[in-house]
Amino acid sequence: MSDQSEKKSHGPLTGMRVLELGHFVAAPFGARLLADLGAEVIKVEAPGGDPVRQWGRQVEGAGAPWTSMHQRNKQSLVLNLKDTRAVEIVLKLVATCDAVIENFRPGQLARMGLGREAMERARPGIVIARISGYGQDGLYRDRAAFGVIGEAIGGLRYLTNHPPSLTDLPPARVGVSIGDSIAGLYAAFGIVAGLWARDRKDGGDGRGRVVDVALTEAVLSMMEGMLPEYGVFGSTREPQGARIATASPSSAYPTSDNKWILIAGNSNPIFARLAALMGRPELATDPRFAGNAVRVQNVEALDEAIGAWSVRHTAADLDRMLSEADVPSTIAYTAAEIAADPQFRARGMVREVEDPAFGTVLHAGVVPHVPDDPGGVRWAGPAAGAHTDAILAACGLGSEEIAGLRAEGVVA
Amino acid sequence: MSDQSEKKSHGPLTGMRVLELGHFVAAPFGARLLADLGAEVIKVEAPGGDPVRQWGRQVEGAGAPWTSMHQRNKQSLVLNLKDTRAVEIVLKLVATCDAVIENFRPGQLARMGLGREAMERARPGIVIARISGYGQDGLYRDRAAFGVIGEAIGGLRYLTNHPPSLTDLPPARVGVSIGDSIAGLYAAFGIVAGLWARDRKDGGDGRGRVVDVALTEAVLSMMEGMLPEYGVFGSTREPQGARIATASPSSAYPTSDNKWILIAGNSNPIFARLAALMGRPELATDPRFAGNAVRVQNVEALDEAIGAWSVRHTAADLDRMLSEADVPSTIAYTAAEIAADPQFRARGMVREVEDPAFGTVLHAGVVPHVPDDPGGVRWAGPAAGAHTDAILAACGLGSEEIAGLRAEGVVA
Repeated sequence: MSDQSEKKSHGPLTGMRVLELGHFVAAPFGARLLADLGAEVIKVEAPGGDPVRQWGRQVEGAGAPWTSMHQRNKQSLVLNLKDTRAVEIVLKLVATCDAVIENFRPGQLARMGLGREAMERARPGIVIARISGYGQDGLYRDRAAFGVIGEAIGGLRYLTNHPPSLTDLPPARVGVSIGDSIAGLYAAFGIVAGLWARDRKDGGDGRGRVVDVALTEAVLSMMEGMLPEYGVFGSTREPQGARIATASPSSAYPTSDNKWILIAGNSNPIFARLAALMGRPELATDPRFAGNAVRVQNVEALDEAIGAWSVRHTAADLDRMLSEADVPSTIAYTAAEIAADPQFRARGMVREVEDPAFGTVLHAGVVPHVPDDPGGVRWAGPAAGAHTDAILAACGLGSEEIAGLRAEGVVA
Repeated sequence: MSDQSEKKSHGPLTGMRVLELGHFVAAPFGARLLADLGAEVIKVEAPGGDPVRQWGRQVEGAGAPWTSMHQRNKQSLVLNLKDTRAVEIVLKLVATCDAVIENFRPGQLARMGLGREAMERARPGIVIARISGYGQDGLYRDRAAFGVIGEAIGGLRYLTNHPPSLTDLPPARVGVSIGDSIAGLYAAFGIVAGLWARDRKDGGDGRGRVVDVALTEAVLSMMEGMLPEYGVFGSTREPQGARIATASPSSAYPTSDNKWILIAGNSNPIFARLAALMGRPELATDPRFAGNAVRVQNVEALDEAIGAWSVRHTAADLDRMLSEADVPSTIAYTAAEIAADPQFRARGMVREVEDPAFGTVLHAGVVPHVPDDPGGVRWAGPAAGAHTDAILAACGLGSEEIAGLRAEGVVA
């Protein structure tokens, strides 16, 4: 193992050991959250490595920079799970772990000899988080899990759109794999909940549990009042574009330098300050705008007035003016503004991480922040198989045996 | 306490006791996730109740139906925290709890006499999750937390948009309070992580921890490769509208009945099936479209062809045809399609819940699903103060004392 991987672990999950049988986003992200808080995570990758390593722009010979963040704090072991000797190695590792996190298609691990019973035999009380598109049972369980499909089934895509009166464009995708990441976060939550139930001094039951996270369901769980409103009133929630249905003004407004500035000015005192800043103090007492309820009714006219003002100023000037007037606002941050933000920097939420493959790489920090006992970035994401020899040796395999398995393509 | 609240608790967090000092979305959502998995949650509300009870469409005399889901499985206690006697009651409750979850402005609880030290005195080892817009320290800590602002600072809003060449409309808001809900989920995760560190038989340290969740940081943590790519290449990720930058076809396409159908057809075999279904099998071998890489380059022409086909069919017909052709797809679900979906129903993810205030209310289910030890919906969200008497009695207050406090407006 590298020097870096031997750095002392910190964080509330120090002492937890997790096996990741994951690929792409959901399970690897969930496992990384556990690792960031101190858990020891062994990532099992297929020969060639997790296909996510090919995503995004590449550095020749080193792969995609986001690998550095996505796989950080993990140990990487490359195994060909089609070989029963690799399956035996997995079970040896399960025997040493508290939890497993996986996002194979439902039933696929069982067909390989890595079902729950085999894992329970290897490690009674193992907690297994399974992430899939639609869940481990039911009519849809065998459907392929595509993030964009799952997000649309969970209700997110329909609502992330402009009203049809404004445009014929299709609803925008949230620009990241939000459904996968939320599912991964739920899996991490479920694992720790299962381990608290199993391990606590006072009442822990020593039992393992399966945590069955569906991408569709993780997304649906974020849809706040949508279902209760539909059930009681029979009304479907409709997309509101850049606005909020019940608060005005609250939208994104254009700037002279082709950026967007968000303004949340829907309380009366804030709106009065905004109107004064715009040089139009009369708006605050205009009967169309004197109170949030009427502002919502006349939102088109109000947003037009605000946009006509905002577009005459640069984003930086608006940011400064609105801030001085104590009107909640922000530029819609790109990566550049995030990287430069002093609050993110001060809290370690944007940080430079040394990476042997890429040099210094900018990472997002550890969430949640636990100031008494922070996790951290102990090392950047390793190359596929970087820890294969060390992990196999710790499983009791000799170096000749490892060389033999490598020659046969069972490990890499 | 009502009959319903005495139903036996189940789920991995059974035996955990949590005090919620929350309002609006983030802390109440996080607390509900804990309650859904079995934790006993006492929600402290200000006189008049959590202002979120006024959000959305109301049933006269009963409030907003989404309250039924947002506050389910909780006990409600109404306290006026401006009165020191109420603060003393909170500390008595803290003494009986494992964790506190709150989303007051940073420092506000401390000013009321409910800072960490006071809570630690009442209950050594208490785990406290604090949710705020920007975190508990740093330059921005005192800024007001508005979800739409925090989401834009976290980078989500900029990316949830069409390329500027396609429209002048501002970037759409994700149609729900996604940043608040993700922050709440991180807080729930952090609480359970802190309790595992504190309570486990083998190595638990008995120590309390603060979990400091910022909405901005919770959102930033979802931005996948954005920061590493910026750091290495200096390039900001740009919005892609309905598409994915690296996969084609993958978008939302129009239907003859003014809905949207999502199609994820970017693997070659799937694309060939899609082309055949469209009656245009030649597309699969057209040099512009033979392979994902060239499809991405010619995505405008390809999406135009798919849209010209899709718009001639209803969403229901497309859904059936694409499904039969084994092309991953879905209608962009509204509440109506979610409510009718057989998979959600079969897994309890859409369920009818009896609510004394509203009759039967449609709720989303419990995520994550733990089939061995499911949590559940033990009761619908209670009216503000529904459990005040029972909770105060359990704190040792007599009925005359409670009546006196109520008469003075300290409790309700």
